[in-house]
Amino acid sequence: RIDGERLWASLMEMGRIGATPKGGVCRLAATDLDRQGRDLFVRWCEEAGCTVVVDRIGNIFARRPGRNPDAPAVMTGSHLDTQPTGGRFDGVYGVLAGLEVVRTLNDADYQTEAPIEIVVWTNEEGSRFSPAMVGSGIYAGVWDLSYGLERPDNNEPGKTLGGELAAIGYAGPEPVGGRPTKAYFEAHIEQGPILEDEEKVIGIVTGAQGQRWYEITVTGQEAHAGPTPMKKRRDALVASARMIDAVNRIGMANQPNACATVGFVRVSPNSRNTIPGQVFFTVDFRHPVDAVLTKMDEELRAACATFAAETGTEAEVKEFWYFPPTPFDADCVNAVREAAAQAQFPHMDIISGAGHDAVYMARVAPTGMIFVPCADGISHNEVEDAKPSDIAAGCEVLLHAMLRSANG
Amino acid sequence: RIDGERLWASLMEMGRIGATPKGGVCRLAATDLDRQGRDLFVRWCEEAGCTVVVDRIGNIFARRPGRNPDAPAVMTGSHLDTQPTGGRFDGVYGVLAGLEVVRTLNDADYQTEAPIEIVVWTNEEGSRFSPAMVGSGIYAGVWDLSYGLERPDNNEPGKTLGGELAAIGYAGPEPVGGRPTKAYFEAHIEQGPILEDEEKVIGIVTGAQGQRWYEITVTGQEAHAGPTPMKKRRDALVASARMIDAVNRIGMANQPNACATVGFVRVSPNSRNTIPGQVFFTVDFRHPVDAVLTKMDEELRAACATFAAETGTEAEVKEFWYFPPTPFDADCVNAVREAAAQAQFPHMDIISGAGHDAVYMARVAPTGMIFVPCADGISHNEVEDAKPSDIAAGCEVLLHAMLRSANG
Ligand SMILES: NC(=O)NCCC(=O)O
Ligand SMILES: NC(=O)NCCC(=O)O
Repeated sequence: RIDGERLWASLMEMGRIGATPKGGVCRLAATDLDRQGRDLFVRWCEEAGCTVVVDRIGNIFARRPGRNPDAPAVMTGSHLDTQPTGGRFDGVYGVLAGLEVVRTLNDADYQTEAPIEIVVWTNEEGSRFSPAMVGSGIYAGVWDLSYGLERPDNNEPGKTLGGELAAIGYAGPEPVGGRPTKAYFEAHIEQGPILEDEEKVIGIVTGAQGQRWYEITVTGQEAHAGPTPMKKRRDALVASARMIDAVNRIGMANQPNACATVGFVRVSPNSRNTIPGQVFFTVDFRHPVDAVLTKMDEELRAACATFAAETGTEAEVKEFWYFPPTPFDADCVNAVREAAAQAQFPHMDIISGAGHDAVYMARVAPTGMIFVPCADGISHNEVEDAKPSDIAAGCEVLLHAMLRSANG
Repeated sequence: RIDGERLWASLMEMGRIGATPKGGVCRLAATDLDRQGRDLFVRWCEEAGCTVVVDRIGNIFARRPGRNPDAPAVMTGSHLDTQPTGGRFDGVYGVLAGLEVVRTLNDADYQTEAPIEIVVWTNEEGSRFSPAMVGSGIYAGVWDLSYGLERPDNNEPGKTLGGELAAIGYAGPEPVGGRPTKAYFEAHIEQGPILEDEEKVIGIVTGAQGQRWYEITVTGQEAHAGPTPMKKRRDALVASARMIDAVNRIGMANQPNACATVGFVRVSPNSRNTIPGQVFFTVDFRHPVDAVLTKMDEELRAACATFAAETGTEAEVKEFWYFPPTPFDADCVNAVREAAAQAQFPHMDIISGAGHDAVYMARVAPTGMIFVPCADGISHNEVEDAKPSDIAAGCEVLLHAMLRSANG
């Protein structure tokens, strides 16, 4: 059995790195705080007897040998980066649950047949650098390495993921990808309200919904807010405001299950008495059924065309990122379900609303995920919280699912 | 007669300081570029025999003595700061037209009865620091000095107007305000399309329309863009988008003459996959009739309340700045009209759509303004342009209006 208190203590210790006054964590990818978190993880892994390597996109792999040193590893992990208003559990839980599995095996002096690896994926959040899941995406061959290294900082022009990884000493020497992997399991907080509403402790994640992200640039004409008659304006912000409202309405019109969000906006020149000449904003569409995502895409393009025409502006709608709804591996899902049943944790099947590194790992290895509830279903918020008993339960399920796989 | 080519050459030389690739100027208040512009102006004034002083909010006064050294001065000027996407004429034209008046009087070896002063007002644009017209406002007693010194940079937390003025060496020793002033004249490009549409060269500015500026903060709840159902969201950006659209509709509903603009937006945490928890934006309302501004105020508050309720967010609507429609002094307006008529420039009466330092000077001295057309009525834009002949005509009218006042 895993040691829930030790896991909780490690989570709280990691949560101090980037801690915010409101009780959350801001540890953006490839910042010095990210380095501090990585350093702590590496030290803990080395103390637990693992050998640690870093690949060229900064993914960290900590390996505990198996009886059969050449067998493909059973891998687990997640990410240490957070949102700007992030919490103490999103990502870090999956990483430290992996560490707790290793520590538990060490305590029991237990050797698995296959090696075990704990992985920290780079820039999972997609907040400082977009899109999300960059480290695992490159690992899985979704993009080549240069795409990852060139990702620009969304707020500070001139900075790139590659440059920032080098600056914090985590642009490693290992090639990205190709580590023989028997299975990949990832533990994570649900980040939504379903498990809590249904009073379950464990979510057996059967797959993840699809996502489409867009970058939209609306161009009008800068002019003076005072002497420029309303009728002569080509206001890029008025156009964008209508498009942002439309994104929300598209989400509402495709219920149940559709999500539609504008999270990032940059107004130019952003001066109180100048009519905005350009607005850049992003759109995040999600749905478990690909055909609905396609329909939402059409609705978005139609709305943008309408509001651009109405305001005399031009809208460039660029699809920036896409992955289809992704089912996980049946054997891995079963391993999770059986581990939950055996431990008698109340559980249910669930589809992930968030993207996770597991989504990309599913392209190169049999993959499963374990969810635990979070308070009020709130994540990407400093108030993000979870119960110690649920956190322990998810780790316990992770241990047994991994053992099944590593010895099976 | 003024030397139009010399004035144009000075404008072009000043326009190199902060020149942008698109042919505009970005010389934000109290930046090092602002210092360079101020230094050049001071050098030119000293070369023209003026004595120069700087007051504690950075306003610069260059004085040419009159026959009667104790007579109240006839003052002219404007500002050297620009919008982020500013042009080569907004503000700087009024300053260098004043310099051209002095140079012309020097060439003719002409001594006026009253002294002449050219003034550069600090932070007229209200873009880097808000509100607008801060230097002239403090001069006129609208705010006390500390209000001006404490104005925060709208984009860089921690910087203040006072600190930045000190850093560029323009927090002068002179007390702010109280210089005996017989009349104040300001030449400016119109910044709107009326003179061009009417094929006039000179606008006799009879007054300025009123303005109300707001700061609106909408607070919702940050949450994950993926697993958070649409119905559970409290999206501060969706609320704000509807309010921004409403601002535009309020402007349209109060035609003719109303203007309504949202120019500045800050989204928090501004992360692509986090539902925005807070949005700050500004509103700029203008109208020549105060009662209509009051009606627009009510419409704004009602719209914000509606959309906040609809989205489960809270909206704080703070009136940030206000000045009522401001008529200029009848004698000054007549001096301008007679100077234009005498020179046989096609002219018309006009109300200023923009705020100008003249609006605050009108509270402490008889004040008038002279407008010249700008290309397509476009200002606060790098393409801002004006005809050399119009620029010269405005300066000619300024010279004669000032002479009438200085000798009358
Ligand atoms: N788990 C998580 O917050 N991932 C970020 C990628 C996404 O927005 O789905
Ligand atoms: N002239 C000018 O651009 N002034 C800025 C203040 C305003 O927005 O009216």
